[in-house]
Amino acid sequence: MDDEYPPIQGAICPTPLPHQDKIILGHGSGGKLSQNLIQKHFMPAFTNPMLMAGDDSAVVLLDAISKDNRLAISTDSHVVWPLFFPGGDIGRLAVCGTVNDLAMVGALPLYLTAGFILEEGLDISVLERVLQSMKDAAQESGILIVAGDTKVVQRGKADGLYINTAGFGLIDPRVHISGANAKPGDIVILSGSVGDHGISVLQARNELGFAAEISSDIAPLNHLTQAMLRVCPDIHVMRDPTRGGLATSLNEIARQSNVGIVIDEKNVPVKPPVASACEMLGFDPLYIANEGKLVAFIPEIYATKVLDSMRDTQYGESSTIIGSVVAEHPGKVLLKTGLGSTRILDSLSGELLPRIC
Amino acid sequence: MDDEYPPIQGAICPTPLPHQDKIILGHGSGGKLSQNLIQKHFMPAFTNPMLMAGDDSAVVLLDAISKDNRLAISTDSHVVWPLFFPGGDIGRLAVCGTVNDLAMVGALPLYLTAGFILEEGLDISVLERVLQSMKDAAQESGILIVAGDTKVVQRGKADGLYINTAGFGLIDPRVHISGANAKPGDIVILSGSVGDHGISVLQARNELGFAAEISSDIAPLNHLTQAMLRVCPDIHVMRDPTRGGLATSLNEIARQSNVGIVIDEKNVPVKPPVASACEMLGFDPLYIANEGKLVAFIPEIYATKVLDSMRDTQYGESSTIIGSVVAEHPGKVLLKTGLGSTRILDSLSGELLPRIC
Repeated sequence: MDDEYPPIQGAICPTPLPHQDKIILGHGSGGKLSQNLIQKHFMPAFTNPMLMAGDDSAVVLLDAISKDNRLAISTDSHVVWPLFFPGGDIGRLAVCGTVNDLAMVGALPLYLTAGFILEEGLDISVLERVLQSMKDAAQESGILIVAGDTKVVQRGKADGLYINTAGFGLIDPRVHISGANAKPGDIVILSGSVGDHGISVLQARNELGFAAEISSDIAPLNHLTQAMLRVCPDIHVMRDPTRGGLATSLNEIARQSNVGIVIDEKNVPVKPPVASACEMLGFDPLYIANEGKLVAFIPEIYATKVLDSMRDTQYGESSTIIGSVVAEHPGKVLLKTGLGSTRILDSLSGELLPRIC
Repeated sequence: MDDEYPPIQGAICPTPLPHQDKIILGHGSGGKLSQNLIQKHFMPAFTNPMLMAGDDSAVVLLDAISKDNRLAISTDSHVVWPLFFPGGDIGRLAVCGTVNDLAMVGALPLYLTAGFILEEGLDISVLERVLQSMKDAAQESGILIVAGDTKVVQRGKADGLYINTAGFGLIDPRVHISGANAKPGDIVILSGSVGDHGISVLQARNELGFAAEISSDIAPLNHLTQAMLRVCPDIHVMRDPTRGGLATSLNEIARQSNVGIVIDEKNVPVKPPVASACEMLGFDPLYIANEGKLVAFIPEIYATKVLDSMRDTQYGESSTIIGSVVAEHPGKVLLKTGLGSTRILDSLSGELLPRIC
């Protein structure tokens, strides 16, 4: 390795790196090829002074912080397959997934890290599309990508690329949101239709067996949650029903808060093509993953104000009340079905759709 | 899915989950199997109130923060193969890698997130060993694991497991460390021998072709950096020479600071078995990855104080001065060789050892 270079007294002629249109193992070396990949592809997408500093950690100032602020910290790995599907891709998912986890505790999302595991042989044009999506989603949400990392594994040791994101946000001292805070009397609001994301990914896998027009709902929900918090700092619970669907999220909340939750099935919006797809495949849309929806538990007196604030935002137009919290049946979710009966709605058991996010 | 459960008026008899000794796709569902995996294996290893809250984000208070504090943020994905090797494993690596990135900007490491990508079929006993290592390394460094995520991919779409960590720490207002801060006249200190980690992993791959006794140097360096900062808050640069080795880290610093760095090869410690392995394989130890070493650039007047403080710590016993910063040859690293000549020491080009971290 050393002998390539002339002694110091001689001329220094660095060899230009050959053009690459696929990821090779050398892109994970930490040396010149890694630097080249980062400078050429990652930096232009995510440029900001904290990332550009190029040190081992990004260094950020929290101007707005006081001793009363709390920091929200979250992480998600993304292994969705295929990488692209109607309405989104792994890049948009990786940013929105973590932005939404921060938003669900009422935090203002501030900083994001991104770790990439790339498979040898990946088209760099695919990476570029994903980075562009991440850039767009970060801009839409207002989060800054401040630190990153890239590793490369041999062909057959990943599936194109996997992305981990971790995020940090600040929580206003007046806000105390937790899955453990649901109270009897709270109403349950859902921000829109369920099942869109999961069915969109199935469609991209050609597993529907018929043509449909279903787009994933992937979206950053922080502007929606901030609008809600402006009219009601006393939101008790928020959660985005991703893997496991609405049914699983509601069960988590019922257990954490030790309350009963009663949901009226006919009030849960399901788009007709999603309903048809679920019917044909034998799925219940209440268990299908969403990536741009939230459920919120709030004191009933705020219902109109909060609903109005939600319906005024891009991703909350179809917000609606779907149920309420009761003291009976602690830890359980009860579903009033369209047929007039009431049954227990349990968490997802087993695996419905692998690699949905 | 719904029909498994009796109507609300009937008895509720939840079916116990079958015992699993291997990871199955259902462990990534977000439903009961995921919950079970987390409750049974992750929570006991990492238990703390912030993680146990079970919300979408961990919520932490920064008691010690003021408007002058800066926050350090870093991330690393870990794909080392094999998962276990002399002196460490992927779990210890995943914690120490990010702790060290925080320590290298002078931060006190506080909070860590961990994202796991598990391959279907992974032995749960392997996961347990890795989690135990992470727990031990987190305790040793004093960092708290506050948020996590687990995804499962099909057999052949990963290689056992991959771990991403992201970390957050606080930087004292007096500390300003960056790769851009090296100044002519600074001395360069190295905290110990180079090449141990890379050669230890090669040994575990049976690629040495001979038996050796080389342990990885993986260690959390934050106690070492805090000891250094106590005697010298004016450290200019710190960096841990991981992928690409000492040569690549020094080149990054020379470019960031636009200075020349002169290193005396005979002062760079290399353990005899590492030197032998490198010689047989045609490697230069200056390009081999380390996971428990740092280089620091400090004003010469602090040399004795800082060296003494380093040698008093567990991972800095063999600290030594290896060179200095000059105004000439900006952006270049010069190596005074054992033969008395001086040559340019360049960054790693190409791939030396894939999946070394």
